[in-house]
Amino acid sequence: KLEWDEVDQRAVDTVRALAADAVQKVGNGHPGTAISLAPLAYLLYQKLLTHDPADTTWDGRDRFVLSAGHSALTQYIQLYLGGFGLELDDLKALRTWGSKTPGHPEYKHTKGVEVTTGPLGQGVANAVGMAMAARRERGLLDPDAAPGESVFDHQVVAIASDGDLQEGVSGEASSLAGTQELGNLTVIYDANSISIEDVTDVAFTEDVAARYEAYGWHVQTVDWTRGGDHTDGEGYHEDVQALWDALQAAKAETTRPSFIRLRTIIAWPVPKLQNTGKSHGSALGEEAIKGLKAATGLDPEKTFAVDDEVLERTRGLAARAAEVRKDWDARFAAWQEANPERAALLARLKTRTLPEGWTDSLKSFPAGKAVSTRKASGEVLTGLAGVLPELWGGSADLAESNNTTMEGEPSFLPPSRQTRSWSGGPYGRTLHFGIREHAMGAAINGIVLHGGTRAYGGTFLQFSDYMRASVRLAALMEIPSIFVWTHDSIGLGEDGPTHQPVEHVAALRLIPGLAVVRPADANETAYAWRGALEHTESPTGLVLSRQNLPVYDREVFGSAEGTLKGGYVLVDAEGDLQVIIVATGSEVEVAVAAREQLQAAGVGTRVVSMPCREWFAEQDDAYRASVLPPSVKARVSVEAGVAAGWRDIVGDAGRTVSLEHFGASADGARLMQEFGFTAENVVAKAHESLQ
Amino acid sequence: KLEWDEVDQRAVDTVRALAADAVQKVGNGHPGTAISLAPLAYLLYQKLLTHDPADTTWDGRDRFVLSAGHSALTQYIQLYLGGFGLELDDLKALRTWGSKTPGHPEYKHTKGVEVTTGPLGQGVANAVGMAMAARRERGLLDPDAAPGESVFDHQVVAIASDGDLQEGVSGEASSLAGTQELGNLTVIYDANSISIEDVTDVAFTEDVAARYEAYGWHVQTVDWTRGGDHTDGEGYHEDVQALWDALQAAKAETTRPSFIRLRTIIAWPVPKLQNTGKSHGSALGEEAIKGLKAATGLDPEKTFAVDDEVLERTRGLAARAAEVRKDWDARFAAWQEANPERAALLARLKTRTLPEGWTDSLKSFPAGKAVSTRKASGEVLTGLAGVLPELWGGSADLAESNNTTMEGEPSFLPPSRQTRSWSGGPYGRTLHFGIREHAMGAAINGIVLHGGTRAYGGTFLQFSDYMRASVRLAALMEIPSIFVWTHDSIGLGEDGPTHQPVEHVAALRLIPGLAVVRPADANETAYAWRGALEHTESPTGLVLSRQNLPVYDREVFGSAEGTLKGGYVLVDAEGDLQVIIVATGSEVEVAVAAREQLQAAGVGTRVVSMPCREWFAEQDDAYRASVLPPSVKARVSVEAGVAAGWRDIVGDAGRTVSLEHFGASADGARLMQEFGFTAENVVAKAHESLQ
Repeated sequence: KLEWDEVDQRAVDTVRALAADAVQKVGNGHPGTAISLAPLAYLLYQKLLTHDPADTTWDGRDRFVLSAGHSALTQYIQLYLGGFGLELDDLKALRTWGSKTPGHPEYKHTKGVEVTTGPLGQGVANAVGMAMAARRERGLLDPDAAPGESVFDHQVVAIASDGDLQEGVSGEASSLAGTQELGNLTVIYDANSISIEDVTDVAFTEDVAARYEAYGWHVQTVDWTRGGDHTDGEGYHEDVQALWDALQAAKAETTRPSFIRLRTIIAWPVPKLQNTGKSHGSALGEEAIKGLKAATGLDPEKTFAVDDEVLERTRGLAARAAEVRKDWDARFAAWQEANPERAALLARLKTRTLPEGWTDSLKSFPAGKAVSTRKASGEVLTGLAGVLPELWGGSADLAESNNTTMEGEPSFLPPSRQTRSWSGGPYGRTLHFGIREHAMGAAINGIVLHGGTRAYGGTFLQFSDYMRASVRLAALMEIPSIFVWTHDSIGLGEDGPTHQPVEHVAALRLIPGLAVVRPADANETAYAWRGALEHTESPTGLVLSRQNLPVYDREVFGSAEGTLKGGYVLVDAEGDLQVIIVATGSEVEVAVAAREQLQAAGVGTRVVSMPCREWFAEQDDAYRASVLPPSVKARVSVEAGVAAGWRDIVGDAGRTVSLEHFGASADGARLMQEFGFTAENVVAKAHESLQ
Repeated sequence: KLEWDEVDQRAVDTVRALAADAVQKVGNGHPGTAISLAPLAYLLYQKLLTHDPADTTWDGRDRFVLSAGHSALTQYIQLYLGGFGLELDDLKALRTWGSKTPGHPEYKHTKGVEVTTGPLGQGVANAVGMAMAARRERGLLDPDAAPGESVFDHQVVAIASDGDLQEGVSGEASSLAGTQELGNLTVIYDANSISIEDVTDVAFTEDVAARYEAYGWHVQTVDWTRGGDHTDGEGYHEDVQALWDALQAAKAETTRPSFIRLRTIIAWPVPKLQNTGKSHGSALGEEAIKGLKAATGLDPEKTFAVDDEVLERTRGLAARAAEVRKDWDARFAAWQEANPERAALLARLKTRTLPEGWTDSLKSFPAGKAVSTRKASGEVLTGLAGVLPELWGGSADLAESNNTTMEGEPSFLPPSRQTRSWSGGPYGRTLHFGIREHAMGAAINGIVLHGGTRAYGGTFLQFSDYMRASVRLAALMEIPSIFVWTHDSIGLGEDGPTHQPVEHVAALRLIPGLAVVRPADANETAYAWRGALEHTESPTGLVLSRQNLPVYDREVFGSAEGTLKGGYVLVDAEGDLQVIIVATGSEVEVAVAAREQLQAAGVGTRVVSMPCREWFAEQDDAYRASVLPPSVKARVSVEAGVAAGWRDIVGDAGRTVSLEHFGASADGARLMQEFGFTAENVVAKAHESLQ
């Protein structure tokens, strides 16, 4: 039963005034949605969500995602009112240097923000990932509890705007959520039919509710416009009870994700500016703000005004949460006692600590038989399955090609979705994202953000372009998402230039904070996984070959452990060191062959394998100078992609063996030959560099 | 009325055998869909589409898009049978070096291929763009003809797979197509419920037909499985008449785009392999191929066998097309005579020739008042509106921010979609893509591929990540799509790191063939547009500032025409040239200020404005050396983004002023200051470089 009195209503109106005041003070921002969604935000933060202002990382909390990140004030004002750590001065500092209230909500920057949002559509897909993670976490920690009875049962609630639902990534993720029957997920769609180009009819006329029904969601509509049009506020009624009922029904629906289409008027009840594109992304102006305050019974002359009574009510959340928490803590203690091993696992997962001795399970590969690094990666994963229950993942419909399945592990699928090829259950481990790279990236971020488990997702390196926005957000959020990108160069062969990544490795390296690891052989691949798993505050992309590559005999060659340092001497010069060949991935083989020829001609040649430029850059000067002595200016880089970036390594005197154009459809070996990735060409470049 | 006899049926079965043989010969490829869609492909190429094997660029032709590009044989075999230029030897050379039959269809590589496809989802969005272009073309050339009566009336027909429809980009574009009421578009969805991970139930259980109804499409289902499941071929019936009827109904529907859900069994009737993920992307093996041939009454022992009677029938397309063409040519001649000016325009558009004297309409900006380059861009567009009717475009919901609207030009919108902010009509010029950057990129490619007009599309530079896959395809196809990316650096300010591009300029430069132009002031912006328009065989991305930038007095500074050369001396050293500062966009201002300080200290300093590294690289050595004399080693680059790539310009002795981490939320000027984009910092780096 919803309790709602005059103080609640005043609090909601206060939210509107604060939103308007905060944007007006800094002179820019997005007031409209924060104003019209004030009742929803208040309802969620004060009444619906299970959370604790005193402990924003509490395992039992519901997760809230503001997919409509531009309406950051929707979240900030509630974090202030609810006492999560923001104060009035933070709202006054909106969008200014050093504030806790940046233009869009930022994870790790503002307490209580679960995810960085703003790039539209991402938040919906993050929420889908969180809901998947919640189910997997329950499966790991408390699988036998009755539905709704586990301390790990919680909801994921997201607010999405018209823009979020126009973006393809949200559609991809929502279709997946339907297949996955994510009953713990609720998306509230703020259907105000206004975006920056004003009334959305110019571009967005579909029946969104029907689309979500087609995805298999539980769909409700709450229409505060009462079937009316959006041209004025007449007859508009913020029916909080109806919204509450819909939210309760969504929560009660546990076999399908829920979609609530909430028809609103943006910026209601701001005189003249409600229902305009202008109110979406601009300061309203003092007159309009006064009008807003007058319309809601607040003092038009006051700014940033909050009644004591309002704040007392909203800060009462702490006490109310403490009550809930007390009960939860008791149940949690009972769970701990009954499940000591699982409790130990949870403690480990919370800190992302890897278990003692886990590296013993890292597969090591004997020299001799050539193996593709994608295949090696699959074997590494299978080897880790037993010791790292937190690790799970899958592919965007390329499981067999990406080698992302841990052998024998069940699929993460509702009973109804299993096929002759894939069996499993709702707590399974192998993920099937479908042909939806973008949603995969965002869902993996959501899984990682949820906490507990860690997920990886695979596709062809070419299609890292489709998911690039999500990869960037993983880097921006400093979260350890892992991306497995196979078929990493023209070496993939016949599929041709549409599938051959030429610029992708270089382009991914540009994302600040992302480690891009392109191992040269199976053992480097094992260490690449180790490095990825040991980096818990940044994402990693593994770049793997389709084709077989020699497995180097590490009695003869440098230890593959050098992978963890990003670059190392794979094989040193005999005699004086005259030239250094630096290569990555499949081109290391070419470098080694070139070295043979150069040494035979009396040129002392070192081969440096440099699987990860970012990890190499993290090493101290002394180590880097030991690998690349500054005095040795003759250098050649070899990588089957654009050279960009290698000049930093090879210097003015160096040469790059690269590919500055698109590939072609033919077998991979032929392409490598045609495009100059041969020992002969590298030798020639080495001689040029020596001159 | 469909005519269909035993020869037609034998031709269809021959298609299946050829598909199986071709993949078997090379040892890899995608036979399954080419086999089961043989009746559809044959129906389209031989019976439905209006086209002419003798003239694949005929204006009157229907456009065909194989969005399911992996099933390239679906197209190649028809191009062979229909006599479009491929022969049996080309099929035998499938996926091999130098062949006309690469792994995925490639535009400009194989005659009759309208678009490069393979990256899933793109083709659907390309087709949407083509359908939009067809309407706009009609509006330019023959607006008064009755519906269906114009020589420019034609259809766009696409084949999409399960994978295409899982990708978000197709959903975005399909929603837009619904809004645009594209009655000239038909998408046939090959619903075989099989993808690489086998039965799609693991990831794709939505009701696709209902989703397309929600988008506002005309939706039909043709079920060759007759409501049965997909586990065997029993009861499967390739009801060609039903498909034909659906195609005719789709053609007759002119107020909505049409969606035909065709339920098929992949690889039917290949024994054992039909309806398996394996048949999707692997050679079938000789035994299965023999089984296929036996099942369809062909000789199991023969490979690449085509009956004379079959080929005679299919090559008869030329004569049938000639009949149609004769009628069309007569109508076209009449149109030409009645519309001499429009006929001249068409002749110009077909060759992408710019009209004489068009550069007189390129706006020139007086020095003095600072103006953002996005605003300048908008003024340039408005200035060009009158002389370049072929140019049109819009934005992904950021019209006012991207300044992409030519002032006073009508919107491209059906009557029902107009709003208080946007009026226009079905032949309008201003495009509204909605918040769908990826579909925008692909639709622009589709418009350009259609021929005739040229389109541009705008969003924030940050969201170039969302559309990157389409930008790459424009480069791969060598088509002159134009992308307008504004808000180009931390200079955008308060929206913070989710919206601040840091690595994007550098990352876009890596795409082979894409020109990335970041003008320093309003006049460089005008020349940037000129360069973009003059490049007719490659795409261009314009990278524009949100913030105002000084307009340089070109009496004092070098001519902005240097923009066309990619880089030029903006202001030279007084006295001996000692150091060169190279900058782009908004940082040119910082470079000029640094030069003042250096010159004041007696250091001869040249400032090079380098808006487009790709155009600069196209210049001859002499010109490049005149701008960057090799003898001058002291160099500093200044660009508010990652430095990657600048080392090539500044060399070992040079310094880069760059940003190697994400931005922050605060006003843009403050951020530039905090992050080192100041004259003082550039001066310090210049001194370092001089040492």
